[in-house]
Amino acid sequence: MNAVPVAELWRGGRLESAHLGHAVIVDGAGQVVQAWGDPGLTIYPRSACKMIQALPLVESGAADRAGLTSSQLALSCASHQGAALHRQAVGNWLEGLGLGESDLRCGAHEPYDLAERNRLIKTDESPCQYHNNCSGKHAGFVTLNQHLGGGSEYVEPDHPVQKAVREAFEDVTGEVSPGFGIDGCSAPNFATSLVGLARSMAYFAKAREDGPSAREKAAYRLTRAMAAHPMMVAGEGRACTELMQAMAGKVSIKTGAEGVFTAILPEQGLGIALKVVDGASRASEAAIAGLLVKLGVLEAGHPAAQKRLNAVQRNCRGIEAAFVRPAADFPG
Amino acid sequence: MNAVPVAELWRGGRLESAHLGHAVIVDGAGQVVQAWGDPGLTIYPRSACKMIQALPLVESGAADRAGLTSSQLALSCASHQGAALHRQAVGNWLEGLGLGESDLRCGAHEPYDLAERNRLIKTDESPCQYHNNCSGKHAGFVTLNQHLGGGSEYVEPDHPVQKAVREAFEDVTGEVSPGFGIDGCSAPNFATSLVGLARSMAYFAKAREDGPSAREKAAYRLTRAMAAHPMMVAGEGRACTELMQAMAGKVSIKTGAEGVFTAILPEQGLGIALKVVDGASRASEAAIAGLLVKLGVLEAGHPAAQKRLNAVQRNCRGIEAAFVRPAADFPG
Repeated sequence: MNAVPVAELWRGGRLESAHLGHAVIVDGAGQVVQAWGDPGLTIYPRSACKMIQALPLVESGAADRAGLTSSQLALSCASHQGAALHRQAVGNWLEGLGLGESDLRCGAHEPYDLAERNRLIKTDESPCQYHNNCSGKHAGFVTLNQHLGGGSEYVEPDHPVQKAVREAFEDVTGEVSPGFGIDGCSAPNFATSLVGLARSMAYFAKAREDGPSAREKAAYRLTRAMAAHPMMVAGEGRACTELMQAMAGKVSIKTGAEGVFTAILPEQGLGIALKVVDGASRASEAAIAGLLVKLGVLEAGHPAAQKRLNAVQRNCRGIEAAFVRPAADFPG
Repeated sequence: MNAVPVAELWRGGRLESAHLGHAVIVDGAGQVVQAWGDPGLTIYPRSACKMIQALPLVESGAADRAGLTSSQLALSCASHQGAALHRQAVGNWLEGLGLGESDLRCGAHEPYDLAERNRLIKTDESPCQYHNNCSGKHAGFVTLNQHLGGGSEYVEPDHPVQKAVREAFEDVTGEVSPGFGIDGCSAPNFATSLVGLARSMAYFAKAREDGPSAREKAAYRLTRAMAAHPMMVAGEGRACTELMQAMAGKVSIKTGAEGVFTAILPEQGLGIALKVVDGASRASEAAIAGLLVKLGVLEAGHPAAQKRLNAVQRNCRGIEAAFVRPAADFPG
């Protein structure tokens, strides 16, 4: 099935650029409620599946053994800005484990947060691994690894940590993963169908606090942790943070590189996954906002929603030059 | 006609993201040599038409009156990095006219050049209009404006400067422009068909030093200036600069925002224009490199070509995680 238009950029009254995508909504029974494009498409979820990658951390008992808070669980699912807030939280977490920055295997990159970026430049300090947007996920990996007693190279695909991630991933997507790619943070990122990813989000949506399995309880806790700590999941100005704040803890959402977005709607018992064909975040953000409005969990008029439904681009002199919005017929 | 696949991103042996686009090659007689997708599509050329926007500067005699060098003409066609090199060149240019930074109307943005960016941050200096990637084009506008004696607001669509740009634009594209959008630098950006844009590039390609019109002579000079000063047109590491260097002055190329690229091939008498539907530069760079190789003006094995034909993405630990390349059947 062909991809459908999901977002577009307008300038001077003309369509300048357009984005195609695929999206699917799945219910708690694992059934497709609605689909756009090809829900069977094999994709890499990238960071949009971080809550799945955090399942073994919680269900194994490692999180409780380390005394992790709800805020830390949110951070384990984060693609954060590398602000001082996030750097310090990850640093304190590692210290609490008796470990340090050199135990991470995510690598370092310049933080997205401008205040922290400028502080580093002014003090001639290099960014460290705590600044990596995936450092919370990696803090979760090393916490699990300490519990499991595995070797230091916890991002290797055959390491006990990644084997546990794969097992959980295949369970909640309901599919055998056809393989993996190496993510920006060096961890394996397991492929799945888009509907498999949405099915996993529906698993999180229907998970109960007193569910029968450790996995279901873990899914419940991670979903609530994300919704309760939106600043830890991303940061100032970011779509995940602002949209979760706008939905006041009722919905958990997560962006992924290359145009992926997922959403968990516990009250509706629904899971959403979408992939923009060309990988553009501006399009995945417009599309997920459109879907959340359609499902009645996001007010279209909320400033955080408008920022994605009518993403005005001001130029260097503050003039409204263009805007990005969901495509005319999406989600319909 | 539908867009065709022009570029793709691969990770872990799987196609992760894909880009559609339109492209067309036109000869010196204005005839289409080959087209992909819809050459009739109306587009904004964005910065890929800066050499057209510089035509009135040269053909009016304003450039010679101000004693502009070939390097300054290249800068008038640039989307530069805002490196010290560019900032100083634009500053000296304005000073030479008895004008200053406040006479520009492009606005300021943080320079892309990291050394200059870090210098500003360390010294608590704000970026100035000279850092704007379009400041060379605007230096050309104010030079023309000084010659024409127009008012200070030279980016207004009905200002003599922009009227002259529009007349030249419609002449070399061979089309009446259906209108304009406001560009990132506040100048009007006139719309045209993709084939119109390629036709204008073919006009530049066939322009002779001793041509019969001031416009043709201006087109010749601008084409050679770009090819002779690739560092002024963009900067370190950039596609325009590195690919023009690789083609050793034989071809002039220019990127534009939202996935546009143009090329002028004087020896072949050909003009190229391409537009990536979703606006991604990584795709337009792969696509233009593929076209230049196909036309025999770029060696596929040259490092600058490989950087776009097989654009390896290394992650934070230096591991090859993915690569972007032209689509399998593009350009064929």
